[in-house]
Amino acid sequence: MIDIKTITVVGLGVIGGSFVKALKDQGYRVFGIDTSLDTLKKAKEEGYIEEGFIDGTKIIPQTDLTIICLYPSLVLDFIKNNSFKKGSIITDATGIKGYFIDQAIDLAGDQAIFISGHPMAGREKKGFEYSSKEVFLNANYILIDHRIEDRSALAFMEKLVGRLGFKSIKIMSPQDHDEVIAFTSQLPHVIAVGLINSDNQKFDTGKYIGDSYRDLTRIANINEELWSELFLNNKENLLNAIEQFETQLDLIKLALESNDSAKLKEYFIESSTRRQKL
Amino acid sequence: MIDIKTITVVGLGVIGGSFVKALKDQGYRVFGIDTSLDTLKKAKEEGYIEEGFIDGTKIIPQTDLTIICLYPSLVLDFIKNNSFKKGSIITDATGIKGYFIDQAIDLAGDQAIFISGHPMAGREKKGFEYSSKEVFLNANYILIDHRIEDRSALAFMEKLVGRLGFKSIKIMSPQDHDEVIAFTSQLPHVIAVGLINSDNQKFDTGKYIGDSYRDLTRIANINEELWSELFLNNKENLLNAIEQFETQLDLIKLALESNDSAKLKEYFIESSTRRQKL
Repeated sequence: MIDIKTITVVGLGVIGGSFVKALKDQGYRVFGIDTSLDTLKKAKEEGYIEEGFIDGTKIIPQTDLTIICLYPSLVLDFIKNNSFKKGSIITDATGIKGYFIDQAIDLAGDQAIFISGHPMAGREKKGFEYSSKEVFLNANYILIDHRIEDRSALAFMEKLVGRLGFKSIKIMSPQDHDEVIAFTSQLPHVIAVGLINSDNQKFDTGKYIGDSYRDLTRIANINEELWSELFLNNKENLLNAIEQFETQLDLIKLALESNDSAKLKEYFIESSTRRQKL
Repeated sequence: MIDIKTITVVGLGVIGGSFVKALKDQGYRVFGIDTSLDTLKKAKEEGYIEEGFIDGTKIIPQTDLTIICLYPSLVLDFIKNNSFKKGSIITDATGIKGYFIDQAIDLAGDQAIFISGHPMAGREKKGFEYSSKEVFLNANYILIDHRIEDRSALAFMEKLVGRLGFKSIKIMSPQDHDEVIAFTSQLPHVIAVGLINSDNQKFDTGKYIGDSYRDLTRIANINEELWSELFLNNKENLLNAIEQFETQLDLIKLALESNDSAKLKEYFIESSTRRQKL
């Protein structure tokens, strides 16, 4: 039976910081690992962690649940370089799953149960100071059901993230996750980057915008290291999503070229209906 | 010399309603015209207009500034069907200019000075109840400098909209307006519609989204009558803007296909820099 008493969050950025903040007063002993001593000091002083560590040597072998909030490429390194408590749970918060989940499970071996997760929440700004438990409030969460024998561990994770403020928690395969995420998260980032980079800068754009341009380009302020990694490791799905989107652009262009007001209205009614349902 | 004492706002929807609300306590006698008696009653009871009318017969000949907040196609009808006070100003709030501005000026004739304007503000929801003076606060405004002999009238309009809360007021030709608007306003609407309509609906999308998809599709809830009119009457500029955007999508696709991490990062750094400047 799963019995979680100690939780260690690895990487106290926006997501990891929000985890320790949301975990406060949930009855766990919470520890933090970060390379920044300042961040660890702050998290401890503010009462979010009992103790901070710059690596996992001391604390990970005593931890029942390890929440790794690092870049995808570093998750595998962290699992490889640490000794986990027998029967403990390891989870992560990365935005793509298929390309690394089997390696992660293999590395965890018979030490720990790896249950991959994806909090669909974040902020444009990086770092602990932008984290808060409100980041998670009413957001969506995805848990990956892949090679998990101990179903009670998965049930525990589902219950836990619900208590941390997430509203919808979906359980799916890594393949389905990566496909849906290519559309709902990666494609919007491609669009935002493409939109702002397509500005020919003939005019002083900022003086001619309303909320629409502001909203559509907000995420064009993008962490290039993280997102190039996310995109390239999910490129088949992302390319499909871009092409589906381009098909719709083509339909709109065709309606414009042929002065087809009826078609345009049809697309707008469809998009309005879909948006209202959301 | 321009001497504005009475202002009549035609069409008390989100924009017209926000005009009468922002005009309160600015020292003018403000009147309203709307086809809805309920709206007129409400605007009068709440103290935003001195009197309401269902057409312009009585009030327009006594009005110093007429602010027409109707769909583009109805602006011309309104000017045609009304008698304006000699030397008064007529302005509008439509999102495109080139295709109708000469007709509007010709119709106004020697009765009134037509100074076209574009408040870059709005709400997703329609109607007087969603109007407020905050809609205009810190938003951008464009005034069109085209066949205006009385420069003091243009100067008055610039000063007035500044007092109504707009932060940046730009004066430009109808051609430049329509070009820049195709990019900053129309293209984002095309993208939002295309994005949400490209959803293959294999998954229950709403459960797998974060703020990015929500933000990028907010304006996909779009008034089909208004926007088909705006798009079709500015189609050359809009098609150019869509094509410029597609060029950027192609660059991103190429970088993905060729696993070119360096290129992706270059695009992301460019987009981030541009967004931070905004």
